[in-house]
Amino acid sequence: MSLHVLHYQHEGRARWGVVKNGAITPIPGEFATTAEFIAANPVERLVELEGPTIPESIVQWLSPVTANQQFICQGANYRQHMIESGMDPDVKKFNMIFTKATSCIVAADSPVVKPSHVRFLDYEIELGLVLKKNITSRRVIADADLHEYVAGAVIVNDYSARDVQIPQMQFYKGKSYRTFGPIGPYLCLLNKADVAKLGDLELTLTVNGAVRQKDSTANLVYGPAETLSELSGVHDLHVGDLLSTGTPAGCALSVPSPMKQRLAAALSEETKWKMFMEIQAARTEYLRAGDTVEARIASRDGSIDLGVQRNQVVDEAS
Amino acid sequence: MSLHVLHYQHEGRARWGVVKNGAITPIPGEFATTAEFIAANPVERLVELEGPTIPESIVQWLSPVTANQQFICQGANYRQHMIESGMDPDVKKFNMIFTKATSCIVAADSPVVKPSHVRFLDYEIELGLVLKKNITSRRVIADADLHEYVAGAVIVNDYSARDVQIPQMQFYKGKSYRTFGPIGPYLCLLNKADVAKLGDLELTLTVNGAVRQKDSTANLVYGPAETLSELSGVHDLHVGDLLSTGTPAGCALSVPSPMKQRLAAALSEETKWKMFMEIQAARTEYLRAGDTVEARIASRDGSIDLGVQRNQVVDEAS
Repeated sequence: MSLHVLHYQHEGRARWGVVKNGAITPIPGEFATTAEFIAANPVERLVELEGPTIPESIVQWLSPVTANQQFICQGANYRQHMIESGMDPDVKKFNMIFTKATSCIVAADSPVVKPSHVRFLDYEIELGLVLKKNITSRRVIADADLHEYVAGAVIVNDYSARDVQIPQMQFYKGKSYRTFGPIGPYLCLLNKADVAKLGDLELTLTVNGAVRQKDSTANLVYGPAETLSELSGVHDLHVGDLLSTGTPAGCALSVPSPMKQRLAAALSEETKWKMFMEIQAARTEYLRAGDTVEARIASRDGSIDLGVQRNQVVDEAS
Repeated sequence: MSLHVLHYQHEGRARWGVVKNGAITPIPGEFATTAEFIAANPVERLVELEGPTIPESIVQWLSPVTANQQFICQGANYRQHMIESGMDPDVKKFNMIFTKATSCIVAADSPVVKPSHVRFLDYEIELGLVLKKNITSRRVIADADLHEYVAGAVIVNDYSARDVQIPQMQFYKGKSYRTFGPIGPYLCLLNKADVAKLGDLELTLTVNGAVRQKDSTANLVYGPAETLSELSGVHDLHVGDLLSTGTPAGCALSVPSPMKQRLAAALSEETKWKMFMEIQAARTEYLRAGDTVEARIASRDGSIDLGVQRNQVVDEAS
């Protein structure tokens, strides 16, 4: 049975607690980082936690992933999203990996700030996995062993400034602006049986109530075990680190068809990017101040439910 | 006057010391991170440090930048390198930013491990700047104020697996393999007058004694103050974080001319990358087990000298 952990601020202190039916049971102890929290609180012990509760409504949410952790992301990792981007999901060429600066991390109900120079602000709902084990050497992780590596799951919204990200080629800058990484609300701790259901979660993102993204993790191209196996041969991963598994189709970004991309390659850089910007300018789906973005991830049987993330878009203060 | 700080291991402990003429004066105190070290040891105080010394030859070097810090890199940031890559350095389109996983950081005399599946291992000498101030909001940093933000300089070698980095487009993975980020040997702490000389350092990289890269920081396209100003508007930077400022021309990587790149865009992805791999395979400059890479950065007047970095290439143990 999955368990909802909330990282929250109350009476001037950052705390962790177990949430059930809108009530928080505070977890004894102080844990400055996600790593410290997970290392000290195995799910088996937390399910037995008892004690006085406080209403969830009186606390301030914090991100369950703290800024000291790695924020590792996969790109183009849903079948339909790959097809729309002109890639064949059955020809698995490579698992695209990039990072976001962790100062973009905010709570799940934080406003998202659109920088004044950014024209094309986009949303990307993603399933995030939080690690429970250090990985410091190459290994093969089987799907059946994934529960040994994954502590739990979170909702991530990988907000992106498309007019920075795409023309500058390296995704890091356009995806790292402050507030571009809401995480949570809950760190949903998972036992072995729950982890087996990670391949069958439904993701839904709405803007002002209208559905924009809706897909299932069954359509992931590179699964978590396969991805962690590959990353283990590249660099170290630590308890509390976040792997965000990519977003489904339905973003505001309009990617030209593969045919158009090849034709565009014959143009000058300047003309090519001018066309790109004009195409994006015609997309009314890009976010504007006042828009409300909601993201939900849950299993169809309701046994896993990561909660609701809700961000209002605001313009950068001048 | 610049000052050489060494992070080193001796008698089972990690220590920091000031190095002069091959002798280390240990700095009192324990500092687990570069941030802690810099915050506690302003250069003005360290120049007055006195005490018994130990020979540098008996200690083991450690990286002066610890793995908790951000490892932020600039791409295509030297004039000649940009020209060879088909870009016009006078038309400054964007400042390319990416990151390396910090578990790639090793000491300046560490072997560099060529992963068994990597064919094209390349070197990239870079000037690295280590911050002395947190930057948590947008600001304009003038060249004249750079000394308020930069504590010192280090040699960085941004080793890269070109057959991973280039076809996968996002640079992170191909540049993050363990041992791909030697830093040091010294953190060269700089005062205001030294910082003013950062734009006139000579970089030299040799492979088995033959010069491959030789350029001056006078040819940087996006300077440090300009880069920190832009980054301040994107994400937070902290004391001890590393900005690696890009590499000059002379790498093993062969980038096709802009004309060839446009022609290649009309090819299928498969054909295009097959051609890319064939071109690289003909480049004898790629590193092989047994090669020795040496990197040096210094001002012509000798007042700033970051030391010598020396890595031997070894194959990954099977």
